[in-house]
Amino acid sequence: MFRYKLTIEYDGTNFHGWQRQLNLPTVQEEVEKAIKKLSGSYHHVQCSGRTDAGVHAYGQVAHVDLEKNYKPFEVRNALNFFLREKGVVIIESESVDNDFHARFSTKNRSYVYKILNRFPPSALDENRLWHVVKPLNIEKIIEGSKFLLGMHDFTSFRAGACQSHSPIKTIDEIKIIKNEEQIHFYFKSKSFLHHQVRNMVGTLKLVGTEKWTPLDVKNALEKKDRRAGGPTAPAHGLYFIEASY
Amino acid sequence: MFRYKLTIEYDGTNFHGWQRQLNLPTVQEEVEKAIKKLSGSYHHVQCSGRTDAGVHAYGQVAHVDLEKNYKPFEVRNALNFFLREKGVVIIESESVDNDFHARFSTKNRSYVYKILNRFPPSALDENRLWHVVKPLNIEKIIEGSKFLLGMHDFTSFRAGACQSHSPIKTIDEIKIIKNEEQIHFYFKSKSFLHHQVRNMVGTLKLVGTEKWTPLDVKNALEKKDRRAGGPTAPAHGLYFIEASY
Repeated sequence: MFRYKLTIEYDGTNFHGWQRQLNLPTVQEEVEKAIKKLSGSYHHVQCSGRTDAGVHAYGQVAHVDLEKNYKPFEVRNALNFFLREKGVVIIESESVDNDFHARFSTKNRSYVYKILNRFPPSALDENRLWHVVKPLNIEKIIEGSKFLLGMHDFTSFRAGACQSHSPIKTIDEIKIIKNEEQIHFYFKSKSFLHHQVRNMVGTLKLVGTEKWTPLDVKNALEKKDRRAGGPTAPAHGLYFIEASY
Repeated sequence: MFRYKLTIEYDGTNFHGWQRQLNLPTVQEEVEKAIKKLSGSYHHVQCSGRTDAGVHAYGQVAHVDLEKNYKPFEVRNALNFFLREKGVVIIESESVDNDFHARFSTKNRSYVYKILNRFPPSALDENRLWHVVKPLNIEKIIEGSKFLLGMHDFTSFRAGACQSHSPIKTIDEIKIIKNEEQIHFYFKSKSFLHHQVRNMVGTLKLVGTEKWTPLDVKNALEKKDRRAGGPTAPAHGLYFIEASY
């Protein structure tokens, strides 16, 4: 078998997330259907980090094993042909060793969360941003975000359905950038708990509206109780940027 | 009558341009329908610069006269309510004097044209960018663009259907910025000929692929013949940014 690493961009709007589900459109199913058209048979596609319904990706990574030794660009071009108009594009295809694993070999994952902070909604990017009407204090958001950096027990920011065996994660990088009316939150970590990024953003938004102080983020973290964290920010502002190996 | 200046964002994808047309969806019609719902009767909405089918706007400007003296934010909020899910949003509404005219009072108009320059197409921004596969030489594009700055006879970059009485226009500013895989072309002028921005970008793309030299732009301009200019870049990469007064 020949293993291929695929880097995938997708618009999550019309998908029920990455992972295959019976009778619901998912990114995984679209990619596996395209691979079947290329290779003639079903092959499981393994991704780096599953995304929820509505979440987008600039650079999701996945691997797949094929019987035939295609040139990487042939895989990319054929899949893009079969995926056309589906909102899923193979950005890159590479031949990799059989010990490469899209999920388990990932060293770091990066996400960006985008907020539109103004009164009127967006006409051009409705499903691409979280529209927050109340003015956000970016300095306070940055101050509050610092308590999330490093290794912590993130129970307060973890979805009930999370399957990770440990709530302890290390956030290596947080960058929060204001770009005109948008605020972009960048997070980098080896791995994240289920809904962790959206729960952190939902919490930092409370700091931005000054309903919470920056120090309340530290207090929420220390309580190790999901009820102590802020609400879950909506899925459509979140993008999987990249996985590094 | 009370005059309101409206600043409008729209996604041009599903519209046959700004201007009302029989039995075709247009931005003007959507805004006029919303105004009828607010005020009870039809009022003509005059824009700063009509856009073609597929062209987007971050900040189109228009004016409308209403019988009732609404507060500006009431006009904005009511119109946004009636325009919801139409891909058209009123960013701002202001009370203006009756000598304000969205088209004739405009001092400057700004457009941006966005190219995605990479092999794979875009999953997230398919209708928002011109996808150019061939690598573009940005230095040569910038060099070629300099010949378009200032006052010229732009006959070579003017659509056959253009209704302007003179082909002489002055381009006050051109900025070309590479942002990862995207190239953004900014143009500022008191006014533009029909298709002028798209014809200039279509021409500069030929310089970028090195099919043309930068100097060929000057030669094309001097020929004062549409057949000497490059092809028209597609509509969906173009955005009306703002009109200043």
